[in-house]
Amino acid sequence: MFIRNAWYIAAWAHEVGDKPLGRRICDEPVVLFRDRAGKIGALIDKCCHRGTPLAIGKVVEQGLECGYHGLIFDATGKCVVIPGQDHIPEKAFVRSYPIVEKDECAWIWMGDPARADPALIIDYPWHNDHKKWPHKHALYHIEGSAMLMIDNLMDLTHLGYVHGSTIGGNPAAHVDAKMETTRNENGLRYVRWMLNSVPPPTYSKAVGFTGRVDRWQDFEFKAPSSIIQWSGALEVGKGAQESETREGGFSLRILHSLTPETETTCHYFWSTANGYRQDDPAATEQLYSEIAAAFLEDQAVVAAQQRRLSELGDADVVDIVSDAARIHMRRVMDRLAAQDRSPAQHAAE
Amino acid sequence: MFIRNAWYIAAWAHEVGDKPLGRRICDEPVVLFRDRAGKIGALIDKCCHRGTPLAIGKVVEQGLECGYHGLIFDATGKCVVIPGQDHIPEKAFVRSYPIVEKDECAWIWMGDPARADPALIIDYPWHNDHKKWPHKHALYHIEGSAMLMIDNLMDLTHLGYVHGSTIGGNPAAHVDAKMETTRNENGLRYVRWMLNSVPPPTYSKAVGFTGRVDRWQDFEFKAPSSIIQWSGALEVGKGAQESETREGGFSLRILHSLTPETETTCHYFWSTANGYRQDDPAATEQLYSEIAAAFLEDQAVVAAQQRRLSELGDADVVDIVSDAARIHMRRVMDRLAAQDRSPAQHAAE
Amino acid sequence: MFIRNAWYIAAWAHEVGDKPLGRRICDEPVVLFRDRAGKIGALIDKCCHRGTPLAIGKVVEQGLECGYHGLIFDATGKCVVIPGQDHIPEKAFVRSYPIVEKDECAWIWMGDPARADPALIIDYPWHNDHKKWPHKHALYHIEGSAMLMIDNLMDLTHLGYVHGSTIGGNPAAHVDAKMETTRNENGLRYVRWMLNSVPPPTYSKAVGFTGRVDRWQDFEFKAPSSIIQWSGALEVGKGAQESETREGGFSLRILHSLTPETETTCHYFWSTANGYRQDDPAATEQLYSEIAAAFLEDQAVVAAQQRRLSELGDADVVDIVSDAARIHMRRVMDRLAAQDRSPAQHAAE
Repeated sequence: MFIRNAWYIAAWAHEVGDKPLGRRICDEPVVLFRDRAGKIGALIDKCCHRGTPLAIGKVVEQGLECGYHGLIFDATGKCVVIPGQDHIPEKAFVRSYPIVEKDECAWIWMGDPARADPALIIDYPWHNDHKKWPHKHALYHIEGSAMLMIDNLMDLTHLGYVHGSTIGGNPAAHVDAKMETTRNENGLRYVRWMLNSVPPPTYSKAVGFTGRVDRWQDFEFKAPSSIIQWSGALEVGKGAQESETREGGFSLRILHSLTPETETTCHYFWSTANGYRQDDPAATEQLYSEIAAAFLEDQAVVAAQQRRLSELGDADVVDIVSDAARIHMRRVMDRLAAQDRSPAQHAAE
Repeated sequence: MFIRNAWYIAAWAHEVGDKPLGRRICDEPVVLFRDRAGKIGALIDKCCHRGTPLAIGKVVEQGLECGYHGLIFDATGKCVVIPGQDHIPEKAFVRSYPIVEKDECAWIWMGDPARADPALIIDYPWHNDHKKWPHKHALYHIEGSAMLMIDNLMDLTHLGYVHGSTIGGNPAAHVDAKMETTRNENGLRYVRWMLNSVPPPTYSKAVGFTGRVDRWQDFEFKAPSSIIQWSGALEVGKGAQESETREGGFSLRILHSLTPETETTCHYFWSTANGYRQDDPAATEQLYSEIAAAFLEDQAVVAAQQRRLSELGDADVVDIVSDAARIHMRRVMDRLAAQDRSPAQHAAE
Repeated sequence: MFIRNAWYIAAWAHEVGDKPLGRRICDEPVVLFRDRAGKIGALIDKCCHRGTPLAIGKVVEQGLECGYHGLIFDATGKCVVIPGQDHIPEKAFVRSYPIVEKDECAWIWMGDPARADPALIIDYPWHNDHKKWPHKHALYHIEGSAMLMIDNLMDLTHLGYVHGSTIGGNPAAHVDAKMETTRNENGLRYVRWMLNSVPPPTYSKAVGFTGRVDRWQDFEFKAPSSIIQWSGALEVGKGAQESETREGGFSLRILHSLTPETETTCHYFWSTANGYRQDDPAATEQLYSEIAAAFLEDQAVVAAQQRRLSELGDADVVDIVSDAARIHMRRVMDRLAAQDRSPAQHAAE
């Protein structure tokens, strides 16, 4: 069961070039392509003639050409060429999906096209601010549901156990950090402050801290797919808590966005941006590499968890204190899922 | 659903030697072997004792010996030896299938043995005429149904799109070629003439054409499994259209024969024979190599098509003009399938 | 359908060390670990918090720590630590299985814990007598049910066909050997004597026989999982048949123990012990290597048999004379299976 009336990242914008790209989203085969005018099209990946995946075709002047018998479709799914005949029957089209290119992502809407309001797409302006926030992005395939990956990001106590050898550090620090959570209709935000604390080695190495720091972790979940992370530290006394921008120390931004592939697998789109040493490409690369290694650890643990839950279910699991944010997130998701299935709700909009 | 009352190629005759050969046909596991008298046997690949596949056994003096406990079966499926006991119970036998060796193929009948008339096996005399038609053959495993492969061969407009980099040439030439089709109860034949045309590079290279040619493509579908192809060209003025044998130019013959393995996979038996430079083994080898490369392209596209149709079905596909031969072929197949399932029809024969 | 109220080998004792070991038994995921006190625990391999397999966790002072959020379980399955909270809810535990370390094996009980009487575990004292019976053991994964492997060991006529190139020798010798079988409620024992016979090359090579020998094969099946084998030979005239210990010639012991993994796969635990040249490690190694090669042949044939039976069933198989022991074994198993499912039977115990 997917929440279909929502925007998901279908691809990094740069992935959609002069070759069609097949990708399964919400368990539907989708083909993405960029037409000669530069516009991205998203179609069901099945030619209306003989069912061949359009992803094995090619982009030509008029649109996407099927690799079997040469029918051509434009970005709206309309068949514009059938080799050997002039008349194009009315039924000759393939389903298209609303798709919007924004903030270096291609956002797709898998539900009712009439409800696909681009204003609902989250903002991630840091992707466009290459000067202040140089970034690098990746796509991990996860053998676990998008929900399990979001669970993962809603309970950071896992850092000490999953990421002990990478970004984790001391388990107790993560368990004990006091957290301030703001809940809202479409998600939640939690902020954790570790005031007057010893900076982790990564931080010190990156910007040369010599003393203690005020450190923050700011996570915002925007249902149903994205988590916007801002973490960093300023030297004690530099007014980290009072500042809006918190410049002059260490700070990073991570976009985490989970797109369901099937009920038990997902696409994990993530990017890292460094708000320090912006003129040094090595800083961007170093941050990316550390996070990439850590997320492989999440990939492994979530895949193992999914296998077990797929077999034995989760009817008997026990919630603990650190699940608070996760539980609120699940409630938001349940509400969205109910709305998604309700035509009445739709009519009322 | 398979048409079972029909002859299919189970194997190239030379494949059936002194080792048993297991092969799935119409979703039944079959073991083929050649007994010491040279006769081919085709049995269900399951020992009647403990269910072990006979294909892991060996051919001995009295027949095919099971590799587990040594029971021996003759080519009719009768158990002739049980180690450790003299009495052989009546129930000790395995199902056998009618099988006929003809034209270098082993043809099997998966349906009612009483209806297995060898006269129904198609003739392919060119396999036996090594002097005039030296040939070479192959077996491709296709991750698509036999029906999708036959579809493929009934609509040559795919040449320009699937085989663009191999034997395809200009898409428009294939789409525009005028075609004469003769339909009959058990199949159809289509002949395409490209009179006074520029020969393709392959043709010129093979026989040294310097001017224009009269070129033909002759495809005969014999339900349910075989397509007999004769293609070639003579120099303009050499009477290609009037001649029965069309010697003195370029000409090739291909047997395409599709044997269902499962509902969604098949065995593609094919051979190429060169009707030119017959004394030059390089000519035979060269023709085979070119075709082999092209058929790998069909293998890939049909596998992709099958995956999509297996998932999403074909209820919504749209026929186009170039589907005419394919549609007649499907009608013939539907009629045969209905006959196949009808015992009344059988009784009436 | 498994016989659950029975002891099975879950692991060789040495396999359970300072890292948790996940293993599927009777189609349940189990995690084995040895706590700091040296006691083995066997738990369901699913954390009660978020369903993560405990096998990816680690052994710590207090027990087995989940690799995701750090909950810790003791060997009884009780949760003893939840990071970040003092109160441990009553529901925070995972299922544990009775497990007993004996004779270098970890024996598990997958059924009703109340019926798990350690006295029911078979004795295999030879594993503890390293001086007289130096041994070496292995674990083969079999793509066939435990039942098919036990079948295999109940009918040695397969030696001539499956093991022709290894330990098999002449098929007729195995088929013709006279066998004395003693049946009992929980199994059977068969002894085969080949008096005044030529010793096999392996035997002669091992202990330097020069003349004829009295040779025995003694197999005892103890339902539902183990076969205890004792084979060997003494020179003619040394009183092999009269002796209890039959020392002074060639003799080996093999434990075969089959633990169901799924309905169609199993774990084959086996060990070889040499009752000759006990001070020569090469003798132990040589015996092990020969048997290891032969059992790979069983692994292959049983996997092939399982594939066929999984597809086509065994309703039509035909029993033969050499199946006598196998048929009794199956009757014992059927009776145990019926008991296993019967709560009344249980109450009566």
